[in-house]
Parts: sequence; structure tokens; C-alpha cells
Amino acid sequence: MFVLVNLKAYSGEPVPVAEAARAVSEATGVRIAVAPQTAHLERVAATGVETWAQHVSSVEPGSHTGATLAESVAEAGATGTLLNHSERRLTLADLDTAVGAARDADLETVVCANTPAQVAATAALGPDAAAIEPPELIGSGTPVSRADPEVVTEAVEAAGAIEESGPIEGSVPVLCGAGISTGEDLVAARDLGATGVLLASGVAKADDPAAALSALVDPIT
Amino acid sequence: MFVLVNLKAYSGEPVPVAEAARAVSEATGVRIAVAPQTAHLERVAATGVETWAQHVSSVEPGSHTGATLAESVAEAGATGTLLNHSERRLTLADLDTAVGAARDADLETVVCANTPAQVAATAALGPDAAAIEPPELIGSGTPVSRADPEVVTEAVEAAGAIEESGPIEGSVPVLCGAGISTGEDLVAARDLGATGVLLASGVAKADDPAAALSALVDPIT
Amino acid sequence: MFVLVNLKAYSGEPVPVAEAARAVSEATGVRIAVAPQTAHLERVAATGVETWAQHVSSVEPGSHTGATLAESVAEAGATGTLLNHSERRLTLADLDTAVGAARDADLETVVCANTPAQVAATAALGPDAAAIEPPELIGSGTPVSRADPEVVTEAVEAAGAIEESGPIEGSVPVLCGAGISTGEDLVAARDLGATGVLLASGVAKADDPAAALSALVDPIT
Amino acid sequence: MFVLVNLKAYSGEPVPVAEAARAVSEATGVRIAVAPQTAHLERVAATGVETWAQHVSSVEPGSHTGATLAESVAEAGATGTLLNHSERRLTLADLDTAVGAARDADLETVVCANTPAQVAATAALGPDAAAIEPPELIGSGTPVSRADPEVVTEAVEAAGAIEESGPIEGSVPVLCGAGISTGEDLVAARDLGATGVLLASGVAKADDPAAALSALVDPIT
Repeated sequence: MFVLVNLKAYSGEPVPVAEAARAVSEATGVRIAVAPQTAHLERVAATGVETWAQHVSSVEPGSHTGATLAESVAEAGATGTLLNHSERRLTLADLDTAVGAARDADLETVVCANTPAQVAATAALGPDAAAIEPPELIGSGTPVSRADPEVVTEAVEAAGAIEESGPIEGSVPVLCGAGISTGEDLVAARDLGATGVLLASGVAKADDPAAALSALVDPIT
Repeated sequence: MFVLVNLKAYSGEPVPVAEAARAVSEATGVRIAVAPQTAHLERVAATGVETWAQHVSSVEPGSHTGATLAESVAEAGATGTLLNHSERRLTLADLDTAVGAARDADLETVVCANTPAQVAATAALGPDAAAIEPPELIGSGTPVSRADPEVVTEAVEAAGAIEESGPIEGSVPVLCGAGISTGEDLVAARDLGATGVLLASGVAKADDPAAALSALVDPIT
Repeated sequence: MFVLVNLKAYSGEPVPVAEAARAVSEATGVRIAVAPQTAHLERVAATGVETWAQHVSSVEPGSHTGATLAESVAEAGATGTLLNHSERRLTLADLDTAVGAARDADLETVVCANTPAQVAATAALGPDAAAIEPPELIGSGTPVSRADPEVVTEAVEAAGAIEESGPIEGSVPVLCGAGISTGEDLVAARDLGATGVLLASGVAKADDPAAALSALVDPIT
Repeated sequence: MFVLVNLKAYSGEPVPVAEAARAVSEATGVRIAVAPQTAHLERVAATGVETWAQHVSSVEPGSHTGATLAESVAEAGATGTLLNHSERRLTLADLDTAVGAARDADLETVVCANTPAQVAATAALGPDAAAIEPPELIGSGTPVSRADPEVVTEAVEAAGAIEESGPIEGSVPVLCGAGISTGEDLVAARDLGATGVLLASGVAKADDPAAALSALVDPIT
């Protein structure tokens, strides 16, 4: 299972969370990455943790003031990026271009989606994985794996609904977001077919991020 | 073949084009629809031509000042709507919701896409059809069927790449946009697998729209 | 006082509200206008009520699928338009262009703003009026004139803070939005310096819109 | 005069330009700052050059994936930020909030505007300065000070058109963007009343950025 901790635009220093994530990952062998704000990428990457961007722009290098180039976040130490998070939606055309820009910069991609149909749509764009996050559950404290387990299994099915032949590539792995906070949630997500989870405040705002992460991955280690 | 004439935000009275479209459609039996600006829907529908919206919003009825409700364009006489035109992009999540809102209002949907991968993505959302319009050819005068025929056949293939089983529905028809203006272009689009074409200025700005439409559909009647 | 009833994207037929507004305006001499959805402009204008658009685009006529041209809403019968409503924000540059496009189409303009500073900013663009609507009060049922009367007087002051000399024009009238529903609110707004009010659900969703409007304007007639 | 070099989303390493800017600034006493991409802020600030962000978001810390918090760019070493660049427009409401967020994070602000009316509007929001950049001249190689000197003097006048009394603060300095590349342009901008200039490719893409900057500031040193 892949655990991706989204630090969103939370206030405060990202390095302690990053160090906790690296330490728990090393101790348990579970893959754990941290996605800080763009301005914090360098200092987070310097901790040695697997570092992700929260977003990259769909543009090529050029006259795009305020854009977040895939190649620049890669230079700052990121090895992957979220795309199309519910707090940072992209048009379909820009999402397609951003997946390509990330790939060209050797960034792994996880594209967020609200519904199984949107998971199928994102799968058609060839990302490395999709994440299913029903918006009504984000920040709810109720894991999607308990509130609506069918949406996870349908998302996993949808991610594999693109035919292997033709111009479009095959099935993509599905991560499970929205409301994940405990080891039980992690196991439930895995049992429904997810290959990872997205988390945010449960780890990022924990008094002891290392303890929170250790408890999370304990049932699978 | 379905011929959909997009009047965009061109200046001038839409009724003469609408009447020309209705007359040529009646005379030839070819399905021809006209998509005027929202403020012109009532007067265009009053001509008896098949009337489409250029866009509908992704929102439910409620506090959304300036939105274009699917049910309101239907009340004004539209029976279909374009969605995600390159001049009016939607986020993937909004596109999904807008396709559903249009369906609930009994509007037929054609979702525009730049690339075969985006056609596959839109097909996953269950519209009535997709339209392939490589942006570099829009308004170029060069038909996609001549400039890049493979993109049309790949789009048709991509639109059928969603498996029949599972939560997602099967193949959707593909319309061909960008640069279509002559009967020869129409035939070429059909021969590449398209079931219709999108046009704009070639008809909407013609001195004699009826003559332009008659010449367009002549080879298939 | 000017009473502008925003029908937003509410469900249902706009004509009864339009007829009520015209009747109450004629009976009382109070200026009352109705702003329906774009697709409903023609049928609302046909009632003889003063008809406003909820939004116009910042673009010139041309290739802008899904845009709402100022000249097209004028052709459909509108004589004014809201701009920059909190549910339909514009960039500063687009707002500037949209005010100009509306002026060129002989549409009166009311530009919405959240704060006195934003009222001063919009006044610099030369609209016919500004409307102050603190977002936290929209739909709250609490009128801004009671919850925060200073914001109205500061907005009126701010709207006059642009110097008469130089390239920028002088003071603009200020309308009061957000939470207005009774005659008492209307009088309070007037006494704070506002020259009109924006309303929405209080009239648009009333069982008897004519009775709601009559009660509203009663204290000033 | 203040010289602000916008590195936009140009490809390549920003440190050499930053070091050139710091060296020329130290040698000449002219204030020169560099605005790199967000991901590059830390390494640029580490050179000792005055470092600016190209954009900050209008949001408070919280659940805003992909946002660029003012406080985070300040932590990364920025002491100022551009806002509302023509390549990164903000709604009027968001611009108002972003100016406040930047001020709270002790970032100096320069707000871009297309026209004198927009300069007056931005001045009402209380930034530290406005920048006038007629969009048709951006990247044209023709300086606004030569192509349209009146627009600069009108912008300077407009920036002072907000009355000193009332809730709104007084005049703000005006920078001159669009097409500036030579020392002659810099002097012309100063003579028209500008207190600084915005530059981009002329320095950022120069073979020898230090030489380009030295030539630029030579006439005023």
C-alpha cells in the first residue's frame, strides 16, 4: 500500500511531518510520501522523504507568470504529483496536458476523481494512478471504505474498463481518499481493491505525526 | 450524418441562418441543427429548426447568478447542447455533472475533445456523442479529415474503447469538427467513421447560408 | 429607490414574477426591474417589466462559444445588467471590459462588491452603480443595513472617493444587497445613503410576489 | 527606480540570473529584485538577492490543495509579490483578499493592471504599488513609454485619484511594464512618473544577465 500525505495549505512547518514520514517508512517498509506546498518542496525533499507536488500546471515552459512547471517541481526534489484534486480542479484538456507534462518531467501522477465514471475518464489519460474521493466525505472523518464501499470497488472496476487494445492504455491502480484515518480504514481500502490511500489532516495536524502514521500502517506491517 | 452549426458569439441576427438550416434539412432529409447564443434560443427555436445550446452549467437550480440551467435552455426550445467546447472548457467534475444535468433535462449532448485520449475520457461520462476538434485546426480552413485523418479514426476507436461491461457504458458516436466546410470534407469525415460534423463560420457567416448548407450536404443526398 | 429582483438560477417560470413586478411598479411609481436567466430574457421582456441580465461576458462578438454578448442580451430585451455578482465573479480586467461592452450596448450596469474598498475599485471602472453585498450576509435573512450599517455608509463614501478630475469619473450610486426583504430594510438602506436594493429569493420564491413587492415598497410610497 | 525581473515559467536554472541581479544591485545601488517560480524561491533567496513571488493565493491557511500561501512564500525567502499579472488574473474580490494576505505576511505588493482605470481600481485596494502593462505591448519589444506614453502618465494620475479622506488610502506608486528593455526605456519611464519597471525575457533570457542589467541601469547611475 502507498500512503500519500497531502499537507494542503496548512499553516506551519512541514519538515517535522516529513521527517516522521521518512522514519516510519524506513522502519516499516511501507511506502509513504509527503506532498507539501510548492514553496516547501526543497526543504521537504532535503529530509529524504519521498516528496510529491500537490499540483503542476498544464503549460510548457514560457511566459506563464505564476505557473507551477512540472520540471521545476522535479528540480526542487518532487518525484510525483497529485493532479485534479477537488480543491484544484483542471479542465479535461488541461488535465490531459498536465499528465503529459508530469510524465515528461519523470513525475509519477495520481489523478483525483469524484466518481467511478470520472475514474474511468482519468484512466483514459494514462496517469500512473487514480484516486477516488467522494467530495461529500472529504474532511468528514468518515472513511469512504465504510460510508460507501461500493464506490471504491466500482472505481477499481472503472479504472480497468479501458480496453487494452487501441490507442488507450489499460487499467490503472486506484487510491482511496476522503476520510481515511485509521489502520482499519487502510485495511478496508486494500480489501476493496485500492493500492493506496490519500490522507491529509489526520497526519498533518496530528500532535505526533510519527505515532499517527505508525498506527495507520500497523495492521499491514 | 448530423450537421451541427455553432453560431458562437457572432454578431448579427440568428434567425436567417436558422431558417436556412430548417429549409435545407427539410429539402434534403439531412439532420441539421443550429446552436445560437443562449439569449437567442427562443427566437431560433420558433423557426422550427432543431435548436441546440452551446453550453449548460453543471449546477442544479438554486443560487447561481449567471448560470445557464439545462432545464431553462430546454424550456427555451433547445433539444441538445454542446459541452466542453474549446472556447468554453469545463473541469472534468463539472463536465460529468453537466452531462447528467443535460440528460435530466432531456437534452442530447455532444462533448468536445482535443485528442483521442480526451474522446475516450469523455465517452466514460456517458454523453450521446463526442466531437474531435484538434485546436490547431479550429478556424484554420483546413479540415481535420485532410490535415490529420488518423486523429479521426483514432478518436472513433477511442470512443469505443470503454468496455461494455461494468459501470461504464459502451461506444459513443464521434463528430468531426475543426475546419469542415465543403461537401468533400463531410464525405471524408463520414468515411473515417464520424457520424456528423460541427461547423461554425463557414455557414454562420456565409452570404447565403442556405446555399452553403446545400453545397455541404449535396454529396450525401 | 431602485428595486432589482435577481431570479438567479431558480427553478420555475419567471413570467409571473415579472408580471407582478411590472404591476407593482406601475401602481406605486417605484422603479422595479427583474433579472432572469439569459434563456428567459425574451419572455420576461415581453411582459413589459424592466428587464436586466444577470451577467454579460467581457468579449467582443466573435469565436466565443457559450459567451453572453452584451448586444445579444440587449436584443433580447434587457436594458441593464448585473456584473461581478458573488456567484459570478470576474477578473478585474474582464470586469473593466464587460462594463465597457455593456455601455456600448446601451445596458445600464450595477457592479457587485463585497467591501467598501471593492466598491471604490469598481467605481473607478465607471459603472452606473455599485452594489455592496457582504458575502456572509447573502441569503442570511439578516439585512446588511441592520447587521453592519457602517459597511453601507462606508461603501457610499468609497463610491465617491474617486476624484472628479483626471481620467476617472466621480461618485457612483450604491445599491444595498444581502438580506434585504422588508419595507423596513428598504427604508434603512435609503437612510444609510443607498439609492436602491438587490433582492432575490424574498420576492422570487414568494407565494405571492406581488404582495411581497407591495409590502417592500409600501413605506416609501 | 525599482527594477523587478519576472522569471515567469521560463526553463532553466534561476540562480545565475539571481546572482547577476544581486551583483549589479550592489555595484550600482539600484534596487533590483528577482521573481522566480514558487518552487525556486528558496534557492533564489539563498543568493541574497531581493526575492519576490510571482503570485500568492487569496486564501487563508487551510484545506486548499495547490494554493500558494503568502506566509509560505515569505518563509521561503520572498519579501514581495506580484499580483494579478496578465498571465495570472484574479477576480476583484480575490485580488482584494490576496493584497490583504500578502500584507499580513509582510510581503510588499505590486498589482498589475492593463489600463489607467484598472490602476485606479487596484489603488483602491491599498497595494504598495501598481504596474501598468498594456497587454498588446507585453513581449512586443516596444516599450510602453514609447508606444503609448500617455497611458503611463494617465496611470500615474489615476493611481493618485483616490481621495485621501475616507476609508480608502491615497496615491500609490506606479511601475511600468511591457516592452522595457533598455536604459533609454528606463529613463523614459521615470520621466513619465513611474517609480520602477517590470522586465522579463530581456534579462531572464539574456546570454549575460549581468551585462543586460548593467546596461539597463547605467543611465540612472
